[in-house]
Amino acid sequence: MNVEIITVGTEIILGNIVNTNAAFLSEECAKLGLALYFHTAVGDNEERLSNVIESGLTRSDILIITGGLGPTEDDITKEIAAKVMNKGLVMDSHSRLRIQEFFNRSYQGKSIPENNYKQALVPEDAIIMDNDNGTAPGIIIEKDEKSLILLPGPPNELVPMFFKDVVPYLKNKAEGIIYSNTVKICGLGESAVEMQIKDLIVNQENPTIATYAKTGEVHVRITTKADTIESAQVRMTPLLQEVKNRFHNYIYTIGDEESLEAAVVTLLKKNNLTLSTAESCTGGLLAGRLINVSGISEVFMQGYITYSNKAKRKILGVKKETLEKYGAVSEKTAKEMAKGGAEVSKTDVCVSVTGIAGPDGGTPDKPVGLVYISCHIPGRTVVKEFHFMGNRTMVREKTVSAALTLLWKCVKEYENTTEQ
Amino acid sequence: MNVEIITVGTEIILGNIVNTNAAFLSEECAKLGLALYFHTAVGDNEERLSNVIESGLTRSDILIITGGLGPTEDDITKEIAAKVMNKGLVMDSHSRLRIQEFFNRSYQGKSIPENNYKQALVPEDAIIMDNDNGTAPGIIIEKDEKSLILLPGPPNELVPMFFKDVVPYLKNKAEGIIYSNTVKICGLGESAVEMQIKDLIVNQENPTIATYAKTGEVHVRITTKADTIESAQVRMTPLLQEVKNRFHNYIYTIGDEESLEAAVVTLLKKNNLTLSTAESCTGGLLAGRLINVSGISEVFMQGYITYSNKAKRKILGVKKETLEKYGAVSEKTAKEMAKGGAEVSKTDVCVSVTGIAGPDGGTPDKPVGLVYISCHIPGRTVVKEFHFMGNRTMVREKTVSAALTLLWKCVKEYENTTEQ
Repeated sequence: MNVEIITVGTEIILGNIVNTNAAFLSEECAKLGLALYFHTAVGDNEERLSNVIESGLTRSDILIITGGLGPTEDDITKEIAAKVMNKGLVMDSHSRLRIQEFFNRSYQGKSIPENNYKQALVPEDAIIMDNDNGTAPGIIIEKDEKSLILLPGPPNELVPMFFKDVVPYLKNKAEGIIYSNTVKICGLGESAVEMQIKDLIVNQENPTIATYAKTGEVHVRITTKADTIESAQVRMTPLLQEVKNRFHNYIYTIGDEESLEAAVVTLLKKNNLTLSTAESCTGGLLAGRLINVSGISEVFMQGYITYSNKAKRKILGVKKETLEKYGAVSEKTAKEMAKGGAEVSKTDVCVSVTGIAGPDGGTPDKPVGLVYISCHIPGRTVVKEFHFMGNRTMVREKTVSAALTLLWKCVKEYENTTEQ
Repeated sequence: MNVEIITVGTEIILGNIVNTNAAFLSEECAKLGLALYFHTAVGDNEERLSNVIESGLTRSDILIITGGLGPTEDDITKEIAAKVMNKGLVMDSHSRLRIQEFFNRSYQGKSIPENNYKQALVPEDAIIMDNDNGTAPGIIIEKDEKSLILLPGPPNELVPMFFKDVVPYLKNKAEGIIYSNTVKICGLGESAVEMQIKDLIVNQENPTIATYAKTGEVHVRITTKADTIESAQVRMTPLLQEVKNRFHNYIYTIGDEESLEAAVVTLLKKNNLTLSTAESCTGGLLAGRLINVSGISEVFMQGYITYSNKAKRKILGVKKETLEKYGAVSEKTAKEMAKGGAEVSKTDVCVSVTGIAGPDGGTPDKPVGLVYISCHIPGRTVVKEFHFMGNRTMVREKTVSAALTLLWKCVKEYENTTEQ
């Protein structure tokens, strides 16, 4: 059973809005075990939309078509879909009544613009799905074992309708389920990860295995098809275990939910450690990512953005001699920042960052992209040198990921030491 | 000249990532005056990708194909594109050298995984675009008046390459020139902006006018087609002037280059004002965005992330009574944070932020999304209350934009007062 997604709307084609509906629908279809090979986006144009629907029907069983169900002149999805499926349009009295009710509730006293009733016109024999959050009903048109599922474009109308009516419809059509799990790795590049599991990738069948590169991270995704979740889990276990064994020290979490910063916070909490940050070139982005974790307030007390040398000295107590002799971007300054940050904020751990994000400020000795990251943790102060490529934004983003990775590693090692 | 966008990647088709590249490329192509009617996304599959490229070539002159240029087994875009265009693959020594250099710089001492050299294989006669931020070069394959433009999938590699090499290439292909200018507005919503220029939008022809909503900003874009830049500028002037007149006090810059944070920094420099930040719920993101401006060190001295009440008291000197009586998320706390931040850091200006980003921590009195932003500037301390919608990340992003807007306004008003 193949599904395909067609997004209708000139605002998508002009790049005014990002196609989040396609991502949402794809993810949900994958969960239902439906094969999905294509997304197409096309403007509100009769000929081009007809062609896209027709060519979709040659290769897929179900087309989910979103957008273009509104009341205005240029909303033509329903009309074109009916035409391609050879169906006439009829007035649906139930939908007409709902539109009336919706207007009465939303715009008390206002009269209903006549063109809104256009939304109650539906293809003959169609399945109608009530829209609880807008005026355009959803529509399923069936013919010759093929289905067109028309959904309203606004996500707040589409998403509830999808879960309420489309999921049961699709479940009925699907064979078996698809089950995935993700092993999230930090501190290794994508090629390095792939080299280590090349044999598993080459021999993949069911479950399948694939790597995805994120800034500073690699995700290894294992996917299996089965009749039930339980049998999928059983089928996946040996491969998952094998991947775990190979990347042991680099896996910060297993599963889709937890981000690197969330894993760091979990680990800090588990070890009863409090955290502060002392940032120069990242200027708050590291703390910003950490604070994205809900519940961070238990471990994170405060952060310092010490952009100037003066601030490094006065706030963190970096020595004047260190700055003069080694410079602000140096191993020694990074270490003193981390130590000083932990001291002044009275936290167990402090991560510091100092570097040259560019585009200016680089020298032959200290080029743009040179970054020192230090982590002070009870017992030791670790420091690492990095050379990052890219523009200012990228250098800073990579620095944040590397700092989180270093922090995660240090806490992990601390945990191992204290456990012994 | 028709352009079409093809996004390659199983992670797109599975809904693991949202197709932001397609939106970015569409918007940029629209700016260049190129017609664009289709987006297609397809997985890393030989047959399906071939079909998509072939059918794209029947209806468009230029296909921009992103993703699938990586070093791994399942990256097949280049191979398929070359096959469809009937070109063999050859080793490009320049690209090979660049990959070597990239690795030496990024992972000193580590050996280069052999599969990375696969990225230096390019179709014969292709135009090669250097990748300054990764190892996969961009590639343009031309044949029979058609072009395939292959770009790496990661946005941080794609975007700079697009501006550096693809824009000049596309400009060359476009007939006549398209000239655009953008009026960037902060402090007004999109509907409000649109209402004020509805008459201009309805009557548009050449130049055209359109609004684009960004987080906390609205961009009004005026575009004209002409033979030369000079004649385009002449043609555009009256409409541009009209827009300037209507939004006078809300325009922070005219042109594409300057971001809101850069405009703020320019304005601070012009008025000889130094800046510090005191953040709670944004946890460093505000400073992080400011520090993205190159040359910020002249005005920005230091920032404080005072997430806990204790930090607000100890670092910024917020009164214990204030926190107890009004709470951490209150007008009064925000004001004391801004005043205290300016005092302790000895800067002229300090912006503070305190709010409830969610998902937890909301109460009926103080719901999630409630944020206070204060700006202390010589002569006064301004504070504003906001109610933002959306999840934690969105609330924080909107807060940062609103803080920059408030800061910009305050400095602007300061400038007007001191000029008099």
